[in-house]
This record gives sequence, structure tokens and C-alpha cells, in this order.
Amino acid sequence: MTTTPIRNLPAVLDTGRTLLEPALRAAISSHLGPEMRRIARYHFGWADADGRPTGNWGGKMIRAILALLSARAAGATAADGLPAAVAVELVHNFSLLHDDIMDGDETRRGRGTAWTVFGVPDAILAGDALLTAAASVLLSAPGAGARSATLALMTATQRMIDGQATDTEFEQREDMTLAECVRMAGDKTGALLGSACALGADLVGGERHLVERLGAFGEHVGLAFQLVDDLLGIWGDPAHTGKQVGADLRVRKKSLPVVAALTSPGADELRALYLSSEPLAESDIRVVAELVERAGARDWARNEAGRQIAAAQECLVSVDIPDDVRGELQEVAGFIVGRRL
Amino acid sequence: MTTTPIRNLPAVLDTGRTLLEPALRAAISSHLGPEMRRIARYHFGWADADGRPTGNWGGKMIRAILALLSARAAGATAADGLPAAVAVELVHNFSLLHDDIMDGDETRRGRGTAWTVFGVPDAILAGDALLTAAASVLLSAPGAGARSATLALMTATQRMIDGQATDTEFEQREDMTLAECVRMAGDKTGALLGSACALGADLVGGERHLVERLGAFGEHVGLAFQLVDDLLGIWGDPAHTGKQVGADLRVRKKSLPVVAALTSPGADELRALYLSSEPLAESDIRVVAELVERAGARDWARNEAGRQIAAAQECLVSVDIPDDVRGELQEVAGFIVGRRL
Repeated sequence: MTTTPIRNLPAVLDTGRTLLEPALRAAISSHLGPEMRRIARYHFGWADADGRPTGNWGGKMIRAILALLSARAAGATAADGLPAAVAVELVHNFSLLHDDIMDGDETRRGRGTAWTVFGVPDAILAGDALLTAAASVLLSAPGAGARSATLALMTATQRMIDGQATDTEFEQREDMTLAECVRMAGDKTGALLGSACALGADLVGGERHLVERLGAFGEHVGLAFQLVDDLLGIWGDPAHTGKQVGADLRVRKKSLPVVAALTSPGADELRALYLSSEPLAESDIRVVAELVERAGARDWARNEAGRQIAAAQECLVSVDIPDDVRGELQEVAGFIVGRRL
Repeated sequence: MTTTPIRNLPAVLDTGRTLLEPALRAAISSHLGPEMRRIARYHFGWADADGRPTGNWGGKMIRAILALLSARAAGATAADGLPAAVAVELVHNFSLLHDDIMDGDETRRGRGTAWTVFGVPDAILAGDALLTAAASVLLSAPGAGARSATLALMTATQRMIDGQATDTEFEQREDMTLAECVRMAGDKTGALLGSACALGADLVGGERHLVERLGAFGEHVGLAFQLVDDLLGIWGDPAHTGKQVGADLRVRKKSLPVVAALTSPGADELRALYLSSEPLAESDIRVVAELVERAGARDWARNEAGRQIAAAQECLVSVDIPDDVRGELQEVAGFIVGRRL
């Protein structure tokens, strides 16, 4: 997920963070070796490159918050869900460390990415260390659910890894279908978000049906987020997205609305423009956006996001969840999907 | 570990491989996504870059063989230990994929390394996928020992990661002690070998004392291997090592014998030569080798390797292990340590 300045954070995000910060710090201290701790503390924003404390706290920890809510959904306390929350946050940050290397991104949260500060080898190792620690944290948790939860988290991680690779591959291909792209987005973005929503309940021994419904809720939210993010990458207001108009088009990103248009009948003009290797002029970008819209792909993406949100809501209907927790899950989901609409 | 042509393989290596190959292939098929399977199959030597079967089999799978013996040491069958063997082999190959990127190595087992064929991003992801699959394979194994074994494997992996980072850091530093270097070698090489020796027994529910002794056996073997490898990197016969005389000295590697010499009294001449940034002439390399030997570091390394081998043997004395298994563990350890002496 990309990040943007946060406004009007749901209250649950703040209360969750007071639990999460010390737990995440403790996990880094006890599960990482001394070399890797340095890099992790920099990456999380707690320390500068020389290890001096910054007093800051990086990231919104949305996935960790969802894991805490997941434990409460199963009738346990947020504290019971902490190992799940910490583990999913570690997996998310493992993926950020490696993605920044793979994409060559030089800044994150207003600072140099880890590989620009510590070099590629140490940044690769730091990602490896966070992934390894994620499994260790969950397996060290008390309770019978630890094994099942860890296996579920690893399965989601595997989907995320394959989704990332497929995304890169699609950028080189011209013949992928819309269904393939939706599946890829589900793997890349939906899998870990779904895992976050299921993991707390799984860890505290929640019923299978509840764990599955919570996971499906998170997957739908993840896909809705991706669709909204893709819409904003084409038609978003630069004042809110922090990106240029048509930012995704400029780099010829094969986002979901674009693929919906490319694979629709009569897309010859769009394909000729978008799949060529000539640089796109600013006027071309406007033409592409129009062609994508005229193909009905903007409406498709909006409708599909709406369907995913409705499907997510539906997942919480037939399950026994405390009302306040259901409300907070919906609030966080709304924040994820709607924050920049 | 570095690899060299194999002669006189212990029979247990061959019999183990007939069990291991299908199990490892099945793990790749069921735990990796389709994109990552392609790269893993290439890396293991089973397929070429286009996915066509090669009919080959890459690697000696020493660690996996040790994990099978570990299960038998606890009175179970080799087949019972297969998930442990597959998991430890996956972790080893995760580290090879990432190490090849970090070191810029372009060939492995006579073929291009994965990053040279599939690019750095996909090779990073493939390493991530193997590490993730290692945890999944172990957690999917039947039996109560799966949780404990997975946690132990992750702890060893964390040590290996930190050892790798510390090794890189030491190459930039001049003030590390010999004890620090021995600890680093234990993390980088000993931890996973120790884990391999303990993991099978752990998985099948072996007694804590046995699991610990087997782990200590493997750690000592790992350190002995490292010392022997370091000796060969300075004084090895190129006809057997496949490297130039003084290969490690040429790249100013801070191997254990070198650090033993650098940190001994009266090492001024050696420090001046070895810690400068001037290129080392061939005559300098001979002088450095002589200075290291004259400092007593060659004898120290030989004696230390002997002590580690004796300590490894000692670990198997006071524990209840079937005699044939004890013999095979010693045979494999001898192969690891002595193959090029």
C-alpha cells in the first residue's frame, strides 16, 4: 500500500498503538540479532542511522490494529492478540524493506530507505530478519492457536510474494486478462490484509467459521483499497494524493482500471498508445485517461470497489462478534478504503 | 559453505537423497506460488531457465541428510524426519539465493546464479519464498514437535542472518577480537548445521537432552568445517580446492587464522600489509601467509579444528542413539570436515 498524510484517524488506531509500540520494540530486541536491530530501528523510524533515538514512530500499523480487533472479535482481549499484531506488522515491514530495493525507491516516510543508508546487502538481510522474527513471535505466543496462526501467516506471505512477482511480470506482458490482474491484486494486497483480520482470532483459538469470515472481510477490504488506489492513480486530486495527475499512467502502470480498458472491445487506440515504448507526452496522458474512462473502466472500478466493500460488510453479518468490535472493524476498513476518496 | 567436486560420498548421502528429492519437489509444488516455483526449480538445478527439466539434481543436501539422521537418532524413521530435512534445505537455499545477490556471485554449481538469469528482484523474492516455505513445511508436519522445531529453525536462521551481517561488517573493521570472529563463524556456519542435527529429533518428539546434544554436535562440526575451510583458503592445494593459492588472502578476507594472527602480539608488519588498501602483489601474499603462520595462527586453527571435532564426538557419547545412526552421523561429519584435508 502507498501512504499519504493521515487526517482524522479513527480513535482505535491511537489506542491500539499505545499497546503495539512497546510490543513491537520488545520483539525486535528479543528476536533479532544486534546487527539487524540497528537497521530495524532505523526502518521503523525509532532511531537515526547512527542508532540515536528519534522519539518518532513510523507507520500507521493498520494491519496490526486489525489483528488486535480480530482477537477481540473472538472474545479475547487486545493484549491476547498482540503476538499476532506484531507478527503481521513484521511481515508487512519485511515486504517494505525488500520492495524498496526491488523498486529502487529512495525515500519512505520522508527519510532515506534502508538500502540507501545501510546498503543493499544489509537491507536484504534486515527484511529476512523481520520475516524470520514474525514466525518466531507467533510461535512463542502462549495458547494452542499459535501453530495454526503461524501457518496461516506464512501462507498469506507466500501469496503476497507471488503476487509481487506476478505484478512485475505483468508489466512486461500484454496478454494478461482482467481476471488474472484481479487475482494478482488479491495476492499482493488482499492476502496480508485478510491474514491480519483473521490472525488474532486464530491465535486465541477462535472458531474456524469466525476466523474464515474475518479473513474474507480483510481480503475484500484489500481489493477495495487497491481499486480505490488505482482510481486515484489516474484521476486523483494531486492536492490529496501527493502525486501528479495521471501519475500511474505516466509510468504506464497496468493498474486494474487500465487493464479493464485494455482488455475491453475496441481498445486499439489505447493499446497503440499505452503498450508502445515511446515516451508519453502530457497530452497523451490526458488522451489515455479519456480512453480508459470511455471504455467504461472508471465506472467498472468504482462499481467493483463498491461490490468489494459490500462483500466485506456481508462477511461480518452472520458471525457472532461484539458490537463495538464490529463497529471498529468497519471504521478501520472505511479509513483504509475511503481516506482519499 | 563453499562447494567442491565430490569424491567418495558416504553411502548415507545417496540413500538419503532418494527420499529427499521427491519430498523437496513436492514441497516446492505445494508451498510456492507459480512464479516462484519456476525460479526455485532452476536454482535447485531441476530445470533450465525456460522451465525444461534438466534431469539433474543440484547440491549435496548435507543438512537435510543430517536432519534425517537426527530423526533416526531419536528412534523414528528417516521418513518421519523428512519435513525437518526439507525445511532445513529450504532455509539453506534461501540463504544461497540471497548471498549470491549480496556477494555479486555470478555462477553456482556451474550455472548462472538465479539473479543473473531472473534479475535481482525475482531472486530476492525467490529467497523469501523458500524461507516462508520452510516454516510452512515444518508447521504442516504431523506430530506435537512441529511448533518447537519450527521455532528452533527460525532461531537458527536469525543467527545465520546476523552472522552474515557481522561478517560483512568485520570486513570494514580493524578492531574485532578473535572471540568475536569465532562467535560470528558459529552464527554464520554453525547455527544452521546445529539446527539440522537437532531438528529431526525435535520434530519427532525426541527428549530435550538428546535434541540439545545433537544440536551441539552440529555446531561443533560447523565450526570445525569453517576452520578447515579457512586453512584451505590460505594453504590449500589448488588442485583440490579449485581456488588459487592464498585465495582468501588475495581478497583480504578476515578468516579465522588471519584474525588470530592480526590480534596476536607483534603483528605490526602483518597489519601494515593486510589492513592497507594497496593491492597485494603475489609476493605480498606469500609474505602474508608466512607472517600468519609465524604468528602461530596456522597451528592455532588446526588445533582449534581438532578441539571442535573432539567436542562434537563428545556430544554423541552420553546419549542414547542407535549405533548405526551414531556411525553415520560421524561419517557425514568426517565428510564435511575432512573432505579436502
